[in-house]
Amino acid sequence: MIVYFNNDFKLHSEVNLSPFDRGFLFADGVYESIRTYNKKLFRYEDHLARLRRSLKEIRIDFNEFDSLENIIYGLIKKNEFDSESLVYLQITRGSVLPRTHSFPKEKISPTIFISVQELIESPEEKSRGVKVILQEDVRWLWCDIKSTSLLPVVLASQKATEENAAEAILVRDGLITEGTHTNFFAVKNETVFTAPSSRLILEGITRKIVLEFCDKFKIDYQEKFINKDDLKSYDEFFITSTTKEITPVVKIDYWSVNEEQPGKLTKSLQSLFKKTTEDY
Amino acid sequence: MIVYFNNDFKLHSEVNLSPFDRGFLFADGVYESIRTYNKKLFRYEDHLARLRRSLKEIRIDFNEFDSLENIIYGLIKKNEFDSESLVYLQITRGSVLPRTHSFPKEKISPTIFISVQELIESPEEKSRGVKVILQEDVRWLWCDIKSTSLLPVVLASQKATEENAAEAILVRDGLITEGTHTNFFAVKNETVFTAPSSRLILEGITRKIVLEFCDKFKIDYQEKFINKDDLKSYDEFFITSTTKEITPVVKIDYWSVNEEQPGKLTKSLQSLFKKTTEDY
Repeated sequence: MIVYFNNDFKLHSEVNLSPFDRGFLFADGVYESIRTYNKKLFRYEDHLARLRRSLKEIRIDFNEFDSLENIIYGLIKKNEFDSESLVYLQITRGSVLPRTHSFPKEKISPTIFISVQELIESPEEKSRGVKVILQEDVRWLWCDIKSTSLLPVVLASQKATEENAAEAILVRDGLITEGTHTNFFAVKNETVFTAPSSRLILEGITRKIVLEFCDKFKIDYQEKFINKDDLKSYDEFFITSTTKEITPVVKIDYWSVNEEQPGKLTKSLQSLFKKTTEDY
Repeated sequence: MIVYFNNDFKLHSEVNLSPFDRGFLFADGVYESIRTYNKKLFRYEDHLARLRRSLKEIRIDFNEFDSLENIIYGLIKKNEFDSESLVYLQITRGSVLPRTHSFPKEKISPTIFISVQELIESPEEKSRGVKVILQEDVRWLWCDIKSTSLLPVVLASQKATEENAAEAILVRDGLITEGTHTNFFAVKNETVFTAPSSRLILEGITRKIVLEFCDKFKIDYQEKFINKDDLKSYDEFFITSTTKEITPVVKIDYWSVNEEQPGKLTKSLQSLFKKTTEDY
């Protein structure tokens, strides 16, 4: 696989990432995942804005945003996929000795790593819906920063995999925040609910698109935490992410929602999303 | 600098860590820092026990513990320091494509990285005491695992550096948990207080030694959270860690404790510690 690493395109096996990279030692970095539709980066400006925000929050001084889009398209071209691409981009504070928790005193260059892989679509998940499990949200309190401090997410995702679930939905103090790599939505009486923008969730780009649909097509919505104990009072559920798009949730732990049939409003939103991406 | 990386001793600049290492992508790894006294690894068995526990908690299957001690001594020898050494050891789940949050489906080898550096002693900090600042504890809820998911610690440490403090002491829901890389102690009426063993702190080896001293020399102690708002009711404060040993805290934010003089019991514990390490 050809990747982009600190100003060079090279084979991934030839990247000499330093073990003193602060991304490796401290998870001192942030990332984005972006996909293509019709070979075009989808909502690139939104991802870029979020990347800028994450970098600013943790005070990594990276300024080469203008060239990024061309680099990504160049990387996609070099890898010659037939399918759509999934782009992964990570920026860390850089590499320096000795290891100290505080930022390096001297000025160092951030590390930038970009990879692309063939996007594996999962149409079945999107048509039939998926099972999710509930897990305690033990992440740090600044989840609005898309950082690589992801160990809690790794452990919750693994638990989901072991329980044949597509996602772990995280619960903090009884309230549903989001999935490990998705946002979580519920529908009651044709009103859409999702956790509010706050430090406790990462605002997904697909989440934003769903709320744009609600605005545009006059679907009522509320940004409000859903109480875990009230789940059974809702009619439909779905999760959103760059790769999962809008995916119906038809089972939560051992509870089969509506005989495991995707909800009506969920399906309408999926149709709107499909149209948006087909026309992109 | 010569380091140890996946079965080889090599120059740190020649390590080819993969950007697909899960330590880099997800902070999916754990670490230990160990120092020498009289060129001998101090309380190595305690560090090893904690490493085993961390690995078990996050289910990294690493079994080469028996050879580690010899590898570390070999590495120290290769680097030929005159001074004492500070050893850093990190183990991650390993490297695999493609990036997925859950554990890799195939069996992969963990990545092991060990470095040593000359230990920089700071006798002045230990004799005069240091300033600390209070910061909100925004870390994840499983701080008993010594993981590399350290971004919150990086940000709090940086804040301390900018305020000319030696450490940031973390406060969760009004209660003091610990420092970013130290444990925090307070003394009142000759009783020593420190946060209890729990998921909210990492049990430091030096913390353990202080409690051993208390047991042995009949010093009263309580493992009990200290309320931030009650700080002024305590007589003395100190922090402990592998590198800071027992360091008096003489200033907390803008409050000068006892005219910035180290406390009596703190100094006694420092003497006991000095004797222990001199005789080691």
